[in-house]
Amino acid sequence: MALIVHKYGGTSMGSTERIRNVAKRVAKWVRAGHQLVVVPSAMSGETNRLLGLAKELAPAKGHSSAYARELDMLASTGEQASSAMLAIALQAEGLDSVSYAGWQVAIRTNNAYTKARIESIDDRKVRADLAAGKVVVITGFQGMDEQSNITTLGRGGSDTSAVAIAAALKADECLIYTDVDGVYTTDPRVVAEARRMERVSFEEMLEMASLGSKVLQIRSVEFAGKYKVPLRVLSSFTDWDIDIEQEAKSGTLITFEENETMEQAVVSGIAFNRDEAKISVLGVPDTPGIAYQILGAVADANIEVDVIIQNLSREGKTDFSFTVHRNDFARTMDLLNSTVLPALGAVEVVGDAKICKVSIVGIGMRSHVGVASRMFRVLSEEGINIQMISTSEIKTSVVIDEKYMELAVRALHKAFDLDQPKA
Amino acid sequence: MALIVHKYGGTSMGSTERIRNVAKRVAKWVRAGHQLVVVPSAMSGETNRLLGLAKELAPAKGHSSAYARELDMLASTGEQASSAMLAIALQAEGLDSVSYAGWQVAIRTNNAYTKARIESIDDRKVRADLAAGKVVVITGFQGMDEQSNITTLGRGGSDTSAVAIAAALKADECLIYTDVDGVYTTDPRVVAEARRMERVSFEEMLEMASLGSKVLQIRSVEFAGKYKVPLRVLSSFTDWDIDIEQEAKSGTLITFEENETMEQAVVSGIAFNRDEAKISVLGVPDTPGIAYQILGAVADANIEVDVIIQNLSREGKTDFSFTVHRNDFARTMDLLNSTVLPALGAVEVVGDAKICKVSIVGIGMRSHVGVASRMFRVLSEEGINIQMISTSEIKTSVVIDEKYMELAVRALHKAFDLDQPKA
Repeated sequence: MALIVHKYGGTSMGSTERIRNVAKRVAKWVRAGHQLVVVPSAMSGETNRLLGLAKELAPAKGHSSAYARELDMLASTGEQASSAMLAIALQAEGLDSVSYAGWQVAIRTNNAYTKARIESIDDRKVRADLAAGKVVVITGFQGMDEQSNITTLGRGGSDTSAVAIAAALKADECLIYTDVDGVYTTDPRVVAEARRMERVSFEEMLEMASLGSKVLQIRSVEFAGKYKVPLRVLSSFTDWDIDIEQEAKSGTLITFEENETMEQAVVSGIAFNRDEAKISVLGVPDTPGIAYQILGAVADANIEVDVIIQNLSREGKTDFSFTVHRNDFARTMDLLNSTVLPALGAVEVVGDAKICKVSIVGIGMRSHVGVASRMFRVLSEEGINIQMISTSEIKTSVVIDEKYMELAVRALHKAFDLDQPKA
Repeated sequence: MALIVHKYGGTSMGSTERIRNVAKRVAKWVRAGHQLVVVPSAMSGETNRLLGLAKELAPAKGHSSAYARELDMLASTGEQASSAMLAIALQAEGLDSVSYAGWQVAIRTNNAYTKARIESIDDRKVRADLAAGKVVVITGFQGMDEQSNITTLGRGGSDTSAVAIAAALKADECLIYTDVDGVYTTDPRVVAEARRMERVSFEEMLEMASLGSKVLQIRSVEFAGKYKVPLRVLSSFTDWDIDIEQEAKSGTLITFEENETMEQAVVSGIAFNRDEAKISVLGVPDTPGIAYQILGAVADANIEVDVIIQNLSREGKTDFSFTVHRNDFARTMDLLNSTVLPALGAVEVVGDAKICKVSIVGIGMRSHVGVASRMFRVLSEEGINIQMISTSEIKTSVVIDEKYMELAVRALHKAFDLDQPKA
């Protein structure tokens, strides 16, 4: 007997028919002898519907804390409703089942409405129910702060809820059922040969999530890593009655076990995105405080910066480059030209919104030299010019012209043998 | 400055446009210097939509407590969402506002899911908010039991929530905004001359509510009487910006002040319904335990009985009559014929579903003799035969052929001068 947490996304909970299928799948796991805690998202579309109503009521409203508090009161109803419905469907399957809102568990968070962070989970009630043979359904996405206000965890927060609950209960595994069947070596829409990974280290997953593999909310992966929760991403669109042994091994396992991943391939996946734009401030005097003068102004304007590069100086001048979200490109250019450039005495600001970022990710890179240079060689052989380079321990990212994105991803995918099953 | 509780029904909260109008109306009261607590229902149709989803998920489900618990988890989300939306709309009007779910207040109830009763309300949080100048929005229809389970109060429960909150806060008045503009002397669809009552005693209102004047949930009236909460029923479909003095005097005030009502007319209103059917067991031996033998069997079958009459006995035999809901008529007849009649040795069971009940209600009846006989004379003058009579201190009801219902109501309305303004 194992203690398993299942998490089902909004698409999996999208209709009473689908909720019934979720119930049948959960029932199969219970009948196989496992203890089950289930964390459902709101029915697909529900959160957007509710937030749309709020927008109609307060079209010009800013982000006051009082307003954010009410958004959380409103949005949290979606998960409460779907949790109650799932408990009802489980009862209809003949199982004892009970649903809890976040505050009932209780799941304690800080008071950062709309993007709260979980601080603690009281597992007593849930443990008692499991011991009494019940399936426990717990709302995702929400918790309660110290003053008993309802908080939500932000988009994709149900993943984090599920992992945090699994951590609190020391569950044997946390299964994230979603509308894809796992984590791929890269986007299959770009590379037909992309392969589903059977396992990936949570560090690699962190890098892939932040790079745009939108399978899992990144905070849930951080949580899984921190509390060593074995996490599996798998499809909820298989037939509910497929063999449970087969289902238990499907999808992608996100693991924290170093020794296994050390044996694996050097590069695990290729991530990419074209949401960014590149900006360079040229001819900046190379004196202390320059980075702060440029990026401080950008941060003050609430613009997020991703890659940051400062080149070696030449004759007391240097070039400073960074990327921002493409939506912030024009605003950032204006800001730099109007205030930063004159103050710095820099020569020029140049920008390019038609770029993309391509990254190779692999925990094996830590112990294998020459991985980055191999990446650069592959791109060079394809005639692709590299505009920026940024590296971390388990990732190397390049910024290139966006028209070469697919070409680069395919070439790298092949060069690092990602279309071959791992040994 | 007064402390006022407003309650808005589902129709008044039916769209974002209407919620905005509610917010504007509340803002008018706040700007007139009052402290406001607002209790909204779910948006019209929402509760039915949610319960419909539950039914789809558990079509054959009985009324287990575990199932009822989940129904309450599900249904309570409707009020939480509309409360948050109203708080947002109030903020958009420039008011400080905060919404609370029942458990956050906390409103404590017993654990009778789907029909819970309020046991206590903690007023500290609400008082602190009011003192800080906030408009407090509190979900209607729901509370929390001792084990922190969410409970709901049953259909129309938001009226009861509002009155209970007004009682806990010792509010100066509880205003129930609804889609009618007050309580009428009888149904205006039957009697064109029906007049809106400016005030009615809560005891009269109790009799009218139970007799089918569906303006207010009867439990809310009981609550108002018990805790002496001045209660006003008024329309939410006037323009929100009508003069506040005029609005404050509109609708119908349900009052507990005896001395005022004692001065009023003998009969305050005419209630009626045709949802009932009449059943008589004839030739029953007049021995102790007869009523129990007949009605015990009916009650065991979960059939509710309204009027009960036992006539004087003649030659050791008596006739026993009662009314049931028309939907239960056939079932009750079957039950009596198959089991009760043989056991009792009664002669016959006769029934009639084509009846109606007409009642005159008035607190003045307590101190005025001859009111009932005047009622009987009026009906006699119209050639209407009375089949059953039942009386209480402030009410006289007759059962008559349903085809005479409108005629009887109109004649009584005129005979008791209800179409004339009160002195």
